[in-house]
Amino acid sequence: MTSFESDYIAGAHPLVLKRLVETNLESLSGYGADIYCENAKEKIKSAVGKPDVQVEFLAGGTQTNAVVISAMLSDYEGVVAADTGHISVHEAGAIEYTGHEVLLVKEENGKIIPQELEKYLTDFYADDNHEHMTFPGMVYISHPTEYGTLYTKSELESISGICHQYEIPLFMDGARLGYGLMSKESDLSLKDIADLTDVFYIGGTKVGALCGEAVVFTKNNKPKHFLTSVKKRGALLAKGRLLGVQFDALFTDDLYYKIGRFAIDMAERMKKIFVDHGLKFYIDSPTNQQFVILDNERMKKMQERVAFSYWEKYDETHTVVRFATSWSTTEEDLKILDDVLRSTD
Amino acid sequence: MTSFESDYIAGAHPLVLKRLVETNLESLSGYGADIYCENAKEKIKSAVGKPDVQVEFLAGGTQTNAVVISAMLSDYEGVVAADTGHISVHEAGAIEYTGHEVLLVKEENGKIIPQELEKYLTDFYADDNHEHMTFPGMVYISHPTEYGTLYTKSELESISGICHQYEIPLFMDGARLGYGLMSKESDLSLKDIADLTDVFYIGGTKVGALCGEAVVFTKNNKPKHFLTSVKKRGALLAKGRLLGVQFDALFTDDLYYKIGRFAIDMAERMKKIFVDHGLKFYIDSPTNQQFVILDNERMKKMQERVAFSYWEKYDETHTVVRFATSWSTTEEDLKILDDVLRSTD
Amino acid sequence: MTSFESDYIAGAHPLVLKRLVETNLESLSGYGADIYCENAKEKIKSAVGKPDVQVEFLAGGTQTNAVVISAMLSDYEGVVAADTGHISVHEAGAIEYTGHEVLLVKEENGKIIPQELEKYLTDFYADDNHEHMTFPGMVYISHPTEYGTLYTKSELESISGICHQYEIPLFMDGARLGYGLMSKESDLSLKDIADLTDVFYIGGTKVGALCGEAVVFTKNNKPKHFLTSVKKRGALLAKGRLLGVQFDALFTDDLYYKIGRFAIDMAERMKKIFVDHGLKFYIDSPTNQQFVILDNERMKKMQERVAFSYWEKYDETHTVVRFATSWSTTEEDLKILDDVLRSTD
Amino acid sequence: MTSFESDYIAGAHPLVLKRLVETNLESLSGYGADIYCENAKEKIKSAVGKPDVQVEFLAGGTQTNAVVISAMLSDYEGVVAADTGHISVHEAGAIEYTGHEVLLVKEENGKIIPQELEKYLTDFYADDNHEHMTFPGMVYISHPTEYGTLYTKSELESISGICHQYEIPLFMDGARLGYGLMSKESDLSLKDIADLTDVFYIGGTKVGALCGEAVVFTKNNKPKHFLTSVKKRGALLAKGRLLGVQFDALFTDDLYYKIGRFAIDMAERMKKIFVDHGLKFYIDSPTNQQFVILDNERMKKMQERVAFSYWEKYDETHTVVRFATSWSTTEEDLKILDDVLRSTD
Repeated sequence: MTSFESDYIAGAHPLVLKRLVETNLESLSGYGADIYCENAKEKIKSAVGKPDVQVEFLAGGTQTNAVVISAMLSDYEGVVAADTGHISVHEAGAIEYTGHEVLLVKEENGKIIPQELEKYLTDFYADDNHEHMTFPGMVYISHPTEYGTLYTKSELESISGICHQYEIPLFMDGARLGYGLMSKESDLSLKDIADLTDVFYIGGTKVGALCGEAVVFTKNNKPKHFLTSVKKRGALLAKGRLLGVQFDALFTDDLYYKIGRFAIDMAERMKKIFVDHGLKFYIDSPTNQQFVILDNERMKKMQERVAFSYWEKYDETHTVVRFATSWSTTEEDLKILDDVLRSTD
Repeated sequence: MTSFESDYIAGAHPLVLKRLVETNLESLSGYGADIYCENAKEKIKSAVGKPDVQVEFLAGGTQTNAVVISAMLSDYEGVVAADTGHISVHEAGAIEYTGHEVLLVKEENGKIIPQELEKYLTDFYADDNHEHMTFPGMVYISHPTEYGTLYTKSELESISGICHQYEIPLFMDGARLGYGLMSKESDLSLKDIADLTDVFYIGGTKVGALCGEAVVFTKNNKPKHFLTSVKKRGALLAKGRLLGVQFDALFTDDLYYKIGRFAIDMAERMKKIFVDHGLKFYIDSPTNQQFVILDNERMKKMQERVAFSYWEKYDETHTVVRFATSWSTTEEDLKILDDVLRSTD
Repeated sequence: MTSFESDYIAGAHPLVLKRLVETNLESLSGYGADIYCENAKEKIKSAVGKPDVQVEFLAGGTQTNAVVISAMLSDYEGVVAADTGHISVHEAGAIEYTGHEVLLVKEENGKIIPQELEKYLTDFYADDNHEHMTFPGMVYISHPTEYGTLYTKSELESISGICHQYEIPLFMDGARLGYGLMSKESDLSLKDIADLTDVFYIGGTKVGALCGEAVVFTKNNKPKHFLTSVKKRGALLAKGRLLGVQFDALFTDDLYYKIGRFAIDMAERMKKIFVDHGLKFYIDSPTNQQFVILDNERMKKMQERVAFSYWEKYDETHTVVRFATSWSTTEEDLKILDDVLRSTD
Repeated sequence: MTSFESDYIAGAHPLVLKRLVETNLESLSGYGADIYCENAKEKIKSAVGKPDVQVEFLAGGTQTNAVVISAMLSDYEGVVAADTGHISVHEAGAIEYTGHEVLLVKEENGKIIPQELEKYLTDFYADDNHEHMTFPGMVYISHPTEYGTLYTKSELESISGICHQYEIPLFMDGARLGYGLMSKESDLSLKDIADLTDVFYIGGTKVGALCGEAVVFTKNNKPKHFLTSVKKRGALLAKGRLLGVQFDALFTDDLYYKIGRFAIDMAERMKKIFVDHGLKFYIDSPTNQQFVILDNERMKKMQERVAFSYWEKYDETHTVVRFATSWSTTEEDLKILDDVLRSTD
């Protein structure tokens, strides 16, 4: 069935898979000590435009959030996140499992509001009892957010400035970073992100890889013996090549950007189809995830022919659903979506 | 360079990779809710010969040990292991990270001695202060062990009987299970293992997959909401298909057994080469890992032409090293090894 | 200096201390296996009016919350609390340290609103993705709350009913329970609380003891090997008698109730003094903690002569402060407070 | 019944209790911010003879071990201990609960052998795979040990030197330090201990207090925001005075030393009684704990009149038991012991 269920419904982008096939028989050392991991790191450093960043690979998004956050926080610290943040809601308590609290701040359209963050930090230190509270030790943002929205450069500068003032690192969850970078509304480059954050990751799983996220420590701040911390959390792949080869491919000939751009183009066309059929959007998303409000009866009919994701109840007779595009979205998929919408108008 | 460094130096077995390529463009739901995971589970149930076992997939060995052990232990319990066990030594404290102690018992050739286990448990409950100690809540064994050795059916029955008597589950780490099953010295079938253990896993990473381990809960004892526990530990892959497709391939046409058998055959031939050159074995291993004692000078010369693993210091002038075979070991590899040994005799 | 800073500014109630002195030289077994712990448990069972409850002693409030919650939750569960709850704010992430998430629901005057709780639970199970989220596995309420307010019997019945419907235990933090029971506005008896909750504790530290909280498991639901779980968390006192003797004293001749009643009476008189001087209350509290809004200049002057607690900023020129009474509050203290207010009117 | 069961069978030393009574009605701030905690810290600094050490109070031994070790270790580190160490055996996995491994080294009479420690550390760093293992990040010793034995100054210097060489802190569990300091065989002063360790604690619970241990950070190395880490572990007493007043008393007029000396004297006399009756010692202990081997029948008869502790099975017909003295041991107790032994000779 035609599916817009997520951006991880297909396997790997064909060029990524091709490299896995081509390199399959080579004998390589394990645990990331192979030439492809090395190459991928160098290519990512070039793409970031900062030769001194440190790059490490992990397998998935929740894993990356938990490993990075827990390895960077001090004992008495927690991580500040939007109350809609992935780590706040949809990771089954993975951060808390590492012994650290997620401290919630108000958001707007999935984004932390700089003023709210500043207020949170100011209030914390003004409180006479703050030594009985979890210290804010890091700020977590996702870009694009869980709602497909983007921080502007100005907003990111504000948040970065606040973090700098309070001397806490800023961590960007870039599980869908490729779509953020290629969005027509984005004014942030990879270098901007490296300049303004202390650590971020370039998502692979949702942008063309079978699995894999590339963590970038931007301020020579990779935790000491990070490999051991990764191993301790059960997150070290024996065949580290699986990650290295894929990121090597993704950062060869701008493939990562091309995948992002393609999915954005398909999303733009999908948006137009929704508009043409008079559908309302739940939120204005400039990336590959689109959230539309469907009448429940129509939704049921549509589900017989196309797959998409339940997001949340809108009201008694309507539901918010998500349609996502990716490198695997086809012209045919869009045509079928258009047909289905027409037949259910 | 020719490498016997480990059984995870190559990518996936070609038939496994072929299936990844063939299924790559199919649209599938995430997180293991796809047809290939389903198929693989059914095939594993057939291979095990017990239709009522429960099968779940995880990405790597340390991860599997940590997830299974921590999800099955009660708060006041730890896991009993040989003091040479992988969880005792080479997992960077991954079990302790979950808040549980590894309780050590003496071993012989990497195997828990049933009498020592029984003594441990008897002594524990005889101790007036045992409520101030970690309760033994599970027994962990690896098969093959970290030294390539195997439990006999009789030994496994003894250990299983002791666990049954004390009402604690027996967990088998089968990271290299394929080599155990196909060893000429093994008298244990997959069904025997399912009968005698409470949970075990069928290792994929070291037996032909890019990554992946198949956990088998044999007594309808999969922890409640296991998927949430997996997610909470950052161990849930978005593209669960990566694991499903690979295990589907490994359990099609007996591929898993064929890989195991091939590596065993190559190991037998490798052993003969070592014997022919008068090398001494550190331990008598009937599986794909061979531990030989090398004179340090010879070792250095050999390292220029073939790769193998440092294991431990033997004495001032000798070192124990490991040579491993796998599906990717070739005739040519063995020939080169023979040549290298001849030239360093 | 005269102090209303908290209800733990003095040592133990004289009758409690007297018993510690009287029993000091007796030889008793450690870790709670002494006659005073036994007696105290029996007296608490009588006070509760339910002979089959299980009673255990711990040293402090945060410790009790962390031990009870973590020992009762399943791996995949978190605890639901008001976003003003002590465990949500002022315990430095003690619950998260045990690997469990605190799930926040809206409150009013420090109390969980039953409708909000029901909505939270309904929404959770309605969400298609709830297996990627922390399961609500317990409800935590404090009574009196952090704002001195009380649940009515009707409210507690509602919350208890919702918990029952969803089959999750209800846990009441009774760090100040004595003041709740003796408040003129309370319609809840100790037996009601035992009937309507699954576990609660009778606070000692803040109600006349040097330290100590008595946990009451009301449904024969004390976690298995609880002593080992307590030890594992570093919460087992070698001289368990310290807790036993104190609770034995507190539950002899209704001392616990008398302490509560006395502090409530003093709080009523203190309230009248505030009213007489035209002060405004931040919240209407019927217990021993009173929250008043002070002009910042007046506050500074007052601080020279009486001690009280900063609570939070009210506006640019006003602050919310807390005054607490206890068994150690004296007539003289109230007189001084009145004088200070008069001299700063 | 006359009891030699442990050194925590009685309440507080009368002079300690007297101070609790005398200070009981004073209004003091909570959480350790009171004058008695302050005074006690100053007195301990004087006793240690190093004004720049940092002192903090905790309630019990297991708690102190868990808090100090987990707050000082880095993520990738574990703590090295004798395999008979208290943290290795009798703390129910309290260290592992904090996510850290206890790394075992061989001991002799309960003491870490310096050569074994050095070998452990050398071997660790020589191992090519050590990044897959828990890093040794601290050394834990108990003094007196769990067997009542003592490190000599020379042994402590060796261990300290090794720790210094590997740049890992040395932590001394001094739960019974008073008995160590006052043993006739000790050549270690409090200042020596402060010089040679990085952190240690002066046990109160087992040396005259109701509860309480005084942690001494000797190298200006108290973890940042330690109070928050203590709170996070549920180990912060609201009435911190309970600890401050007791240690203030213990370090007034050399009370701590007098208690130690008295118990040592009584232990010497008890030893003589055992010798006179021809009993054999399991180990030669120069402190307040004596381990003797009893014929099982005699043991049963003795238990009717005096209490002591089961330690371990010696052989089929004999048992190792422990007799402990303390400040509360009386002439009468020794006389009864002598009588009981005579009547069972």
